[in-house]
Amino acid sequence: MILIVKFGMSSRQETPTFASSHPFLLPSTYPYTAHTHTQFNMSTDKVTCLLNWHATPYHIPIFLAQAKGYFAEEGVKVAIIEPNDPSDVTEIIGSGKVDIGCKAMIHTIAGKARGFPIKAFGSLLDEPFTGVIYLKGSGITTDFQSLKGKKIGYVGEFGKIQIDELTRHFGMSPEDYTAVRCGMNVSKAIIKGEIDAGIGLENIQMVELEEWLASQGRPRSDVQMLRIDELAELGCCCFCSILFIGNEKFIEENPEKIKAFMKAVKRANDYVLAEPKKAYEEYVDVKPIMATDVNRKMFERTFAYFSHDLANVKRDWTKVTNYSRRLGIVDQEFQPNYTNEFLSWKLDDESEDGNAKQQCIYRIQKDVAEKGGVFSGNAARFENQVVDA
Amino acid sequence: MILIVKFGMSSRQETPTFASSHPFLLPSTYPYTAHTHTQFNMSTDKVTCLLNWHATPYHIPIFLAQAKGYFAEEGVKVAIIEPNDPSDVTEIIGSGKVDIGCKAMIHTIAGKARGFPIKAFGSLLDEPFTGVIYLKGSGITTDFQSLKGKKIGYVGEFGKIQIDELTRHFGMSPEDYTAVRCGMNVSKAIIKGEIDAGIGLENIQMVELEEWLASQGRPRSDVQMLRIDELAELGCCCFCSILFIGNEKFIEENPEKIKAFMKAVKRANDYVLAEPKKAYEEYVDVKPIMATDVNRKMFERTFAYFSHDLANVKRDWTKVTNYSRRLGIVDQEFQPNYTNEFLSWKLDDESEDGNAKQQCIYRIQKDVAEKGGVFSGNAARFENQVVDA
Repeated sequence: MILIVKFGMSSRQETPTFASSHPFLLPSTYPYTAHTHTQFNMSTDKVTCLLNWHATPYHIPIFLAQAKGYFAEEGVKVAIIEPNDPSDVTEIIGSGKVDIGCKAMIHTIAGKARGFPIKAFGSLLDEPFTGVIYLKGSGITTDFQSLKGKKIGYVGEFGKIQIDELTRHFGMSPEDYTAVRCGMNVSKAIIKGEIDAGIGLENIQMVELEEWLASQGRPRSDVQMLRIDELAELGCCCFCSILFIGNEKFIEENPEKIKAFMKAVKRANDYVLAEPKKAYEEYVDVKPIMATDVNRKMFERTFAYFSHDLANVKRDWTKVTNYSRRLGIVDQEFQPNYTNEFLSWKLDDESEDGNAKQQCIYRIQKDVAEKGGVFSGNAARFENQVVDA
Repeated sequence: MILIVKFGMSSRQETPTFASSHPFLLPSTYPYTAHTHTQFNMSTDKVTCLLNWHATPYHIPIFLAQAKGYFAEEGVKVAIIEPNDPSDVTEIIGSGKVDIGCKAMIHTIAGKARGFPIKAFGSLLDEPFTGVIYLKGSGITTDFQSLKGKKIGYVGEFGKIQIDELTRHFGMSPEDYTAVRCGMNVSKAIIKGEIDAGIGLENIQMVELEEWLASQGRPRSDVQMLRIDELAELGCCCFCSILFIGNEKFIEENPEKIKAFMKAVKRANDYVLAEPKKAYEEYVDVKPIMATDVNRKMFERTFAYFSHDLANVKRDWTKVTNYSRRLGIVDQEFQPNYTNEFLSWKLDDESEDGNAKQQCIYRIQKDVAEKGGVFSGNAARFENQVVDA
């Protein structure tokens, strides 16, 4: 299979002193000068951006901002990096080892409260439905108390804190169930039967499980979710909104880079919302792993959650700050750690009815799950209200 | 699909002041104190480790050192992160934004020469065969001159420099072919016909293309490689050996962490070499993406390349430093930037004949490609010499 290439003597004869550094051997375009051995230490102007999760369909605006040259056009260089443990993210960004990244709202608040100086400067996903995901036949039902005696998987830390708090409202205690830390592998643990249920997102883990069920000849609707926002009477899943966050010192010292970063992401986000199918094909082109059926379905189920103006929503921040107080994550004095000052476009009106929006998104998600989404021509979103209620 | 859970009043009545921070609502195990809003900025003791590529089967020792708790047992916390552009790695580590990582030898040398203070402190993969990969029927043959007029893909920068230099030895010039920068998507670009050939590794891109050909009903042997080491008369593909590298200042200030990191990786590496099938299943368990057939084949084709003692090989460093001089990447005074001082075990004897080893590995690789590797019981490696010549 591997071919051995034999050299004719002629090719050798052209360059008798192979290991010398004959000037003509230096590629003329090569950017290094010959005295680069001097000890000077270069810095980098690349902004490191650590995702909250391995790349998923919902990170498309960031990847397209890179691939379509929008970052370059805005004059910012970005190195997109991916974690293997989502629990590393706020700590690494907060300690200044990485400049910016993505993270859910509740983690952004908790990280700050813990002493890691981070601040959100934009939103990627608004209020994706989040909850305890289980399969029919697991013994778990719509009754929260059915979790008694079960093994519940969670990602890093806060899922457990949320469930622990919920047990108190349902006449149970944290000792009534077994918490299993699963990192990014909640779905897999459910499939392997290692846990009875796990905390996840409607557009990610539920889709993974639906497609796995379908591959087993079982109905997709065997995947169920106890939504945490409903159990906890929050009125929205904003605690799980995925935000753009950064190290506070980095933000303070590099406001132009943050502004440029968000401008490029906004351009890509606008493109995704206007041309979702084309945009996804471009994403697949730069990130071939996105070509799977499961990822395409995740993209369809993510479409309605994409933030429209990428702004932090004050109503949500207030709710989640209060919820964080209730969870004991922050104290009464905690001030929401976000800003919209780097968003250089007109932000959407926030006066809309949050509950009505949630109901609308709920109907869209149900519709997409049953009939297909953008790849079937259904690009329903809250703004365009094309949902049949 | 999404269930609405109705609350009975009883559950509400238990906690009338839902949004208050009643002491009993604070989970007793919760690690934050109530005064965490004070502005103190925490640092992190997590060592950030940026891979040279998205996770591949050959990164298994690093992931298992994490998953099996070896890092923890050695007292080092590691955050494994993955790049989206391999060209970011030396720059980000060199500038101190990330502590340590992996990178090929030639990039490690070039990064240092460019002024990014990086140093290698171990080896992961020894001399994986690297070259210009093409498909039969592309018009490219074992004759280097057949590359004339072709589009050749390369990852970041040095592949182009290497091919440019080779053109001079074969009576051509860099203008005789079109170089196309492909990042991590060389195989995909060949499949899509965007390039005629591309630079890659025998155990990665060749396997991707072989499996794609098989899926198209074409023989796997239609994938061919012009090995750069042979074209350039280097005697080995050591320029592409994958090393453990770190920021020099970080290494200097944290020798114990580097030592602990390598000790844990060595333990995992020993386990991989002793129990490759079991080890791979454990890898799949923590990194489910590894469960594909293509990744399993890559693991088989990587097995013989895993370094045995994880040491930097002086013979290879000398060769590649000379090669780098010839390429104009470093000047005559450049000193190889590696150390084995953090490897706290007996290193293998380096006196072995490098060429004989290469020939042995060549036979092993051919055998694995034709008959299967560790998953078929063929765990041949240079040390155990079970190759039928």
